[in-house]
Amino acid sequence: MQRGATSVEAAVSELKDLPYADLGFASVDHHRALRHGAPEVILGHGKTVEQIVGIARELARMGQNVLITRLGEDAARQVCAAIPQLKYAALARTATLEQAPIAALGTKPIALVSAGTSDLPVAEECAETLRMLGVAVERLYDVGVAGIHRLLHKREVFDRTSVVIVVAGMEGALPSVVGGIVAGPVIAVPTSVGYGVSFGGLAALAGMLSSCASGVVVCNIDNGFGAAYAAARILRVREKY
Amino acid sequence: MQRGATSVEAAVSELKDLPYADLGFASVDHHRALRHGAPEVILGHGKTVEQIVGIARELARMGQNVLITRLGEDAARQVCAAIPQLKYAALARTATLEQAPIAALGTKPIALVSAGTSDLPVAEECAETLRMLGVAVERLYDVGVAGIHRLLHKREVFDRTSVVIVVAGMEGALPSVVGGIVAGPVIAVPTSVGYGVSFGGLAALAGMLSSCASGVVVCNIDNGFGAAYAAARILRVREKY
Amino acid sequence: MQRGATSVEAAVSELKDLPYADLGFASVDHHRALRHGAPEVILGHGKTVEQIVGIARELARMGQNVLITRLGEDAARQVCAAIPQLKYAALARTATLEQAPIAALGTKPIALVSAGTSDLPVAEECAETLRMLGVAVERLYDVGVAGIHRLLHKREVFDRTSVVIVVAGMEGALPSVVGGIVAGPVIAVPTSVGYGVSFGGLAALAGMLSSCASGVVVCNIDNGFGAAYAAARILRVREKY
Amino acid sequence: MQRGATSVEAAVSELKDLPYADLGFASVDHHRALRHGAPEVILGHGKTVEQIVGIARELARMGQNVLITRLGEDAARQVCAAIPQLKYAALARTATLEQAPIAALGTKPIALVSAGTSDLPVAEECAETLRMLGVAVERLYDVGVAGIHRLLHKREVFDRTSVVIVVAGMEGALPSVVGGIVAGPVIAVPTSVGYGVSFGGLAALAGMLSSCASGVVVCNIDNGFGAAYAAARILRVREKY
Amino acid sequence: MQRGATSVEAAVSELKDLPYADLGFASVDHHRALRHGAPEVILGHGKTVEQIVGIARELARMGQNVLITRLGEDAARQVCAAIPQLKYAALARTATLEQAPIAALGTKPIALVSAGTSDLPVAEECAETLRMLGVAVERLYDVGVAGIHRLLHKREVFDRTSVVIVVAGMEGALPSVVGGIVAGPVIAVPTSVGYGVSFGGLAALAGMLSSCASGVVVCNIDNGFGAAYAAARILRVREKY
Amino acid sequence: MQRGATSVEAAVSELKDLPYADLGFASVDHHRALRHGAPEVILGHGKTVEQIVGIARELARMGQNVLITRLGEDAARQVCAAIPQLKYAALARTATLEQAPIAALGTKPIALVSAGTSDLPVAEECAETLRMLGVAVERLYDVGVAGIHRLLHKREVFDRTSVVIVVAGMEGALPSVVGGIVAGPVIAVPTSVGYGVSFGGLAALAGMLSSCASGVVVCNIDNGFGAAYAAARILRVREKY
Amino acid sequence: MQRGATSVEAAVSELKDLPYADLGFASVDHHRALRHGAPEVILGHGKTVEQIVGIARELARMGQNVLITRLGEDAARQVCAAIPQLKYAALARTATLEQAPIAALGTKPIALVSAGTSDLPVAEECAETLRMLGVAVERLYDVGVAGIHRLLHKREVFDRTSVVIVVAGMEGALPSVVGGIVAGPVIAVPTSVGYGVSFGGLAALAGMLSSCASGVVVCNIDNGFGAAYAAARILRVREKY
Amino acid sequence: MQRGATSVEAAVSELKDLPYADLGFASVDHHRALRHGAPEVILGHGKTVEQIVGIARELARMGQNVLITRLGEDAARQVCAAIPQLKYAALARTATLEQAPIAALGTKPIALVSAGTSDLPVAEECAETLRMLGVAVERLYDVGVAGIHRLLHKREVFDRTSVVIVVAGMEGALPSVVGGIVAGPVIAVPTSVGYGVSFGGLAALAGMLSSCASGVVVCNIDNGFGAAYAAARILRVREKY
Repeated sequence: MQRGATSVEAAVSELKDLPYADLGFASVDHHRALRHGAPEVILGHGKTVEQIVGIARELARMGQNVLITRLGEDAARQVCAAIPQLKYAALARTATLEQAPIAALGTKPIALVSAGTSDLPVAEECAETLRMLGVAVERLYDVGVAGIHRLLHKREVFDRTSVVIVVAGMEGALPSVVGGIVAGPVIAVPTSVGYGVSFGGLAALAGMLSSCASGVVVCNIDNGFGAAYAAARILRVREKY
Repeated sequence: MQRGATSVEAAVSELKDLPYADLGFASVDHHRALRHGAPEVILGHGKTVEQIVGIARELARMGQNVLITRLGEDAARQVCAAIPQLKYAALARTATLEQAPIAALGTKPIALVSAGTSDLPVAEECAETLRMLGVAVERLYDVGVAGIHRLLHKREVFDRTSVVIVVAGMEGALPSVVGGIVAGPVIAVPTSVGYGVSFGGLAALAGMLSSCASGVVVCNIDNGFGAAYAAARILRVREKY
Repeated sequence: MQRGATSVEAAVSELKDLPYADLGFASVDHHRALRHGAPEVILGHGKTVEQIVGIARELARMGQNVLITRLGEDAARQVCAAIPQLKYAALARTATLEQAPIAALGTKPIALVSAGTSDLPVAEECAETLRMLGVAVERLYDVGVAGIHRLLHKREVFDRTSVVIVVAGMEGALPSVVGGIVAGPVIAVPTSVGYGVSFGGLAALAGMLSSCASGVVVCNIDNGFGAAYAAARILRVREKY
Repeated sequence: MQRGATSVEAAVSELKDLPYADLGFASVDHHRALRHGAPEVILGHGKTVEQIVGIARELARMGQNVLITRLGEDAARQVCAAIPQLKYAALARTATLEQAPIAALGTKPIALVSAGTSDLPVAEECAETLRMLGVAVERLYDVGVAGIHRLLHKREVFDRTSVVIVVAGMEGALPSVVGGIVAGPVIAVPTSVGYGVSFGGLAALAGMLSSCASGVVVCNIDNGFGAAYAAARILRVREKY
Repeated sequence: MQRGATSVEAAVSELKDLPYADLGFASVDHHRALRHGAPEVILGHGKTVEQIVGIARELARMGQNVLITRLGEDAARQVCAAIPQLKYAALARTATLEQAPIAALGTKPIALVSAGTSDLPVAEECAETLRMLGVAVERLYDVGVAGIHRLLHKREVFDRTSVVIVVAGMEGALPSVVGGIVAGPVIAVPTSVGYGVSFGGLAALAGMLSSCASGVVVCNIDNGFGAAYAAARILRVREKY
Repeated sequence: MQRGATSVEAAVSELKDLPYADLGFASVDHHRALRHGAPEVILGHGKTVEQIVGIARELARMGQNVLITRLGEDAARQVCAAIPQLKYAALARTATLEQAPIAALGTKPIALVSAGTSDLPVAEECAETLRMLGVAVERLYDVGVAGIHRLLHKREVFDRTSVVIVVAGMEGALPSVVGGIVAGPVIAVPTSVGYGVSFGGLAALAGMLSSCASGVVVCNIDNGFGAAYAAARILRVREKY
Repeated sequence: MQRGATSVEAAVSELKDLPYADLGFASVDHHRALRHGAPEVILGHGKTVEQIVGIARELARMGQNVLITRLGEDAARQVCAAIPQLKYAALARTATLEQAPIAALGTKPIALVSAGTSDLPVAEECAETLRMLGVAVERLYDVGVAGIHRLLHKREVFDRTSVVIVVAGMEGALPSVVGGIVAGPVIAVPTSVGYGVSFGGLAALAGMLSSCASGVVVCNIDNGFGAAYAAARILRVREKY
Repeated sequence: MQRGATSVEAAVSELKDLPYADLGFASVDHHRALRHGAPEVILGHGKTVEQIVGIARELARMGQNVLITRLGEDAARQVCAAIPQLKYAALARTATLEQAPIAALGTKPIALVSAGTSDLPVAEECAETLRMLGVAVERLYDVGVAGIHRLLHKREVFDRTSVVIVVAGMEGALPSVVGGIVAGPVIAVPTSVGYGVSFGGLAALAGMLSSCASGVVVCNIDNGFGAAYAAARILRVREKY
């Protein structure tokens, strides 16, 4: 251990009052919702059913809202059997428990754009997360660039929305086109839709990061949750700008 | 939204008459067949059985021909149970519905060349797509470069065909040899056949793109459908050259 | 060409009034500044000195502000000799021409955080872009995670700023830590600083996209310009939320 | 050596009459122009000035047209000093010798579309190759997807052209959009323009191969020559379709 | 065979007395425990149940302690049925046989830090290995950098421990922070936790190798066993420093 | 088709007498065994059971020996049920039919060295192939470099063998050590054994190709068959040296 | 900014007394040497000469020892001209200023092993760093695995040393062999020596991480500094074990 | 250090008589030529001119033949100035000193086949190495697969040669074709010739490893030296087969 760093240790001692529920395998942090204004989120992927149920129960007991993402159908059946108040959205692979009121975030809805039918699981994970964060959503689905008139056809939706989230797989071209016709924030989410050189979403990701439309920002592959959360970060701090 | 772009909005307003059937999860575009002279194609990979059936039913209802690609055997059984007029080709993993007459495209057949037995699923996806596009096919299978005399043996086939599609996995050398002895268009399709450094078809893809035979063009890995569609693009616009 | 798409053609005909200056090698778009509220930007990388000078002159002639990015020292000397009003910032590798007033964007400054001294060129490209976009900046430099107390030491800066831009190379860990202590938008910019498995910034990029802090969004490697532009997108549309 | 393959050996003996000029380091094949209807092409990249001059002189001596590609400025100065009839196109990095008449190929021009100013070297390599192959060209430059109206603005060009070649770097989205509005052949050429995750053109390449527009075919990165050659393959065999 | 290397052959002849049990498919080396002070370890991954049982039986027969790693639940059931003395730890995927006394190694415990709940299987593989090597462990779980106060909160643990092992997936930022506040050895273990650009742990690995905290050393992805073994190497040779 | 290439066509016409059995999906070449002195080999991976049985039956009917590689247990059961004379080697995943005498190849055995127990499937595929090619084998298994004395212990085996084949996964270091102590041909086979940065054998492959022991040659990952075939190529042409 | 985290802010306020010299582009931390017992290190790569000189001068002024790494010859000439007390080691590419006494660290020397002559720059960067950290070094150079007797020849060196650092490029096999014959800590440093599939050191890195010798730990490619620092971490905390 | 391994130490003690010249930075091994029957080889790449001269002088002093590979023109000028007996081959980038007689190896020449003019540097490095190893060479250059008749035209060369070395860049298809018509050993050498997805020779390497011609073995990219050495390994041990 580092010598002479006593002031850091003193500082940390002040943090000891923060309320934790230590489950052995997870520190459930009852202040996070307070700190960030969001429900506690459990990433289902990589956790056992027992761990998911354990964390969710602790949160439910505290009266918090819960969002479980990346929850496959088999695991969902077991988790929902253990905690019957949870609602499972199969396409989005999310389970939610809504027991506390959710404050509305933002005065206009978010535009949620997706390129193809196969991108829907990611788009819906995003939509469910937005719902739990109090953000209204307007969907604009199946408007890939190979039929560019479908997007142009419906572009008045951008007049009545704020942040735009674009979900696309394959070549990931849609955010570039949207970024060119929209002046507000554009959050791009590559999906693992495609095969061959799609590289499980990497082609779309690289395309979006290389976008010729300036200022498009990008989330991890299939990370519909992250895009929703990023949108909420933007909306939440309105008063600061 | 972009300010001052009123003329774009005006332009788009004229597009509103294009007929769409909005299924919620997919915009079925009844004009595409008209626009491109092709049947509506459903990429089965990444869609649920419900989505495939929903789109196919809508198309069937409109009297269009339907081609479903990347349809595994389990999904095929369910889809064909729902829409019994569909015919499933197991090797090609395609299901087709042929209810409208298909106009012949091109006056000579396409040559469809493949390197090995394991490349057949991709070659047959290509052949089924060509059939639905009205293009005649002459097959030249199992003529890999390790037995170069097998290809040379049968090369008179190139005298009576137009476009050549070459399907090959492993090192993907076949298009280079074919490109050297044929003066017309050569479309190369790498397959994911192979193991180790085949990288799921990437070695073949890189080999084809790096081909020392000038002017060989390439499709995505395993994309037999795309190669057929590219051949149709070439044949369809004959009158323009 | 697509048949029957007459409405698209009609729509496009309305776009013909948009003012372009066609330089042969570039369409200089005098409306873009109007449309997006930003100066015209010239990406110096990949262009010849002649092309850069040609485009910059046309823009200067129209009275617009100009921002040239990725301008190496040799090219800068030639470009600035041709257009003496340009000011070159060597560390940021940008040249700017400020002849029109720049409207302030946002009521609070942006926090611009960087991990190490080697990240400064990217951070300064970002700062120069923000300046040209009318956004105030508060710098927080050299606060990498290996000395976490340096960041915590100065974290009151986040109380008086809005969007946070985090520039970091090597393992790219800084945005995760910042994302955990800030509730507003966090834009991460990986830099190509590092060697070996830094992979020219790819390690930092992957780390930022995989961040365990929810809702951190990411720009391309070394894309300080893009991060600034993304921040402006967020600030510009304040009235919409 | 393979036993019993006597018939192959006999066959090969008949090939012995093909005229070669053996330069020691290269077999100059005076029949290739005859066989494929194209000038002999020398890929400058990877050859010494001495080798380039040696091959070009032999071809010039035979009265053939010559196209040298990937010829940097330094090498060009030396090669053109040795063979003064050569004309060097600096942007395209090609040198050409046109001493035999070039037969026109195709009845309509090719459309040559490029996304940005930085893509011009590849586009011009393509244009120079097309010129030497007897193919007329109509250029449509600087119409990237981030300003989609620029492409739509000029799309009547597709009515008077046949094959479309699309040159684009960064995310490589342009061919998908063009492929959606054009029914004829679309040849996509990724360029190494970009930085970071552009991966020297790999992002654009992957995007083009994954294109959601069916039947777009792709050439190697920066391979403007190959795209031109592929277009010629399509045009040359018109009579066969 | 190399000529004239007679002295090497002579040297090898002296090695012939080392006791091997040759099982046909594996040379069980009864001296290794003696040489390195560790139990014999069987990497379960890539071996058949028959091979695992065969090796473990031979070791059990000799009175040695046994550690089997990477043993999935199905294989574990069969292996433990064959050798009932084995104890299976499901989360760690290890089976152990402890029949010989284990000498304590080190005078203080090791600190075992992990970032998230999903990293637990790797952390527990590490803990089980440490136990079999005679090393005491103090666990510090679920202290990822997105909630940096959780780590700072409990950092007095570093005062009473020696080597620190840090297990983390996703961006792998935790070892950099720990390396900055601890002066002793820090061994980082990336885990395959994450999705998309996590690349199965590669992002975390690259992040850890690129760490801005000097002198952090790294093990292979998910290699909890290796980290424990490395810690033992450090502790075992105390007397040499 | 290429014009003026009449001599090639004439040559090919002479090839027409080569006996083929055209099965529709495969050209079974009854001369190959004659030409190369090897049995016909069927790569099971990527073929349907029907295709494997069809080809094997045609070969069996002609009295040839048959070697089927990469035959999983499920497929093996079906194939062997259809052709009961086949013998299946489960570890090697090969099935063989030996009905014609196999001429001995080479006067000394081959040394077949492997690093660990998990490399045995690849080593045994190699051994089975060597047996069908008439090559005697001496096995030297489980002699990885982490216990270098195990290899040195048994190195007199190199005095009585000719070609050395080295099978190793993980870091693939064994061929470098063997190549340093053996003067004859060393064929290295990387295996996909390992995890994390083993990259499915790529680390071992790269290590072997980068070997500091001069003149070590390498086969594809897991390609035990190819290594055996390469050894036979070396032995078969003894009389030519 | 996070709401309600007042205790963190209080903690941080205590850190304000830590002495910083803020140079604008770098926070020079005069306590780090105190905290970690090491000289301040300046990574030359990625910094301008002005920045290096600025930081080094500030450190020199405070009486500290200085180590500059990755300092090319051109930069070294300028830096040493500005600060003449610096000594430049050309092979190691380091410059050092030793004005304060260096306390000896460890009671035995470190063994520094390297595979080939080309690995010397990395090995010497390591040696210079060790010297500045007070660690004695015994060099064992040019003992690559292709001549395994060279290593075995000199292995008594391991009896009189503690930690072993192994520097190797190409296939990176040396640490596996060393790890098998040494029971203490082995730190492996891959170098970018090699070509082709060496991938700039990635093959060696992957080989070392995949090492079949348990408990070998790895540093970034060419990171001789990091390996030295890791060794010092091990030695510095002797009293804790 | 490993306890109880006394027999290894004893063995090593016998190795101490092997004559080394210790230059500080390299162990020059005067027995290697004796052991392997080859000249001492100095890989120039990665060594300083001083190191090359130092090693070469020591070898020259002992009367040995010397082969320096990867010696660029600038370094060659300095090295040859220091040791005037060296002969530099510019195309092959090798310098040789031939002062001892070279015994002929093999009774027939090797066939050295290359695909294009740009592959000549690698082919000539191979040829120079073969010459120093006493192996006769027959060259067959510029016979790439895009003009397959050029190879077939000259294939009688395979009747009078033994081992075949095939050097090819781009797609690396040539070894597959050669492997199909030759029954003896085929050693493939990928070159870094090409651009875009050639990936610096990786496409050719992957193609050669994935070759559909059985038993083709592969060397590292551009490793002409290694291929020659592998051929010598095959020829040298003729008496063993």
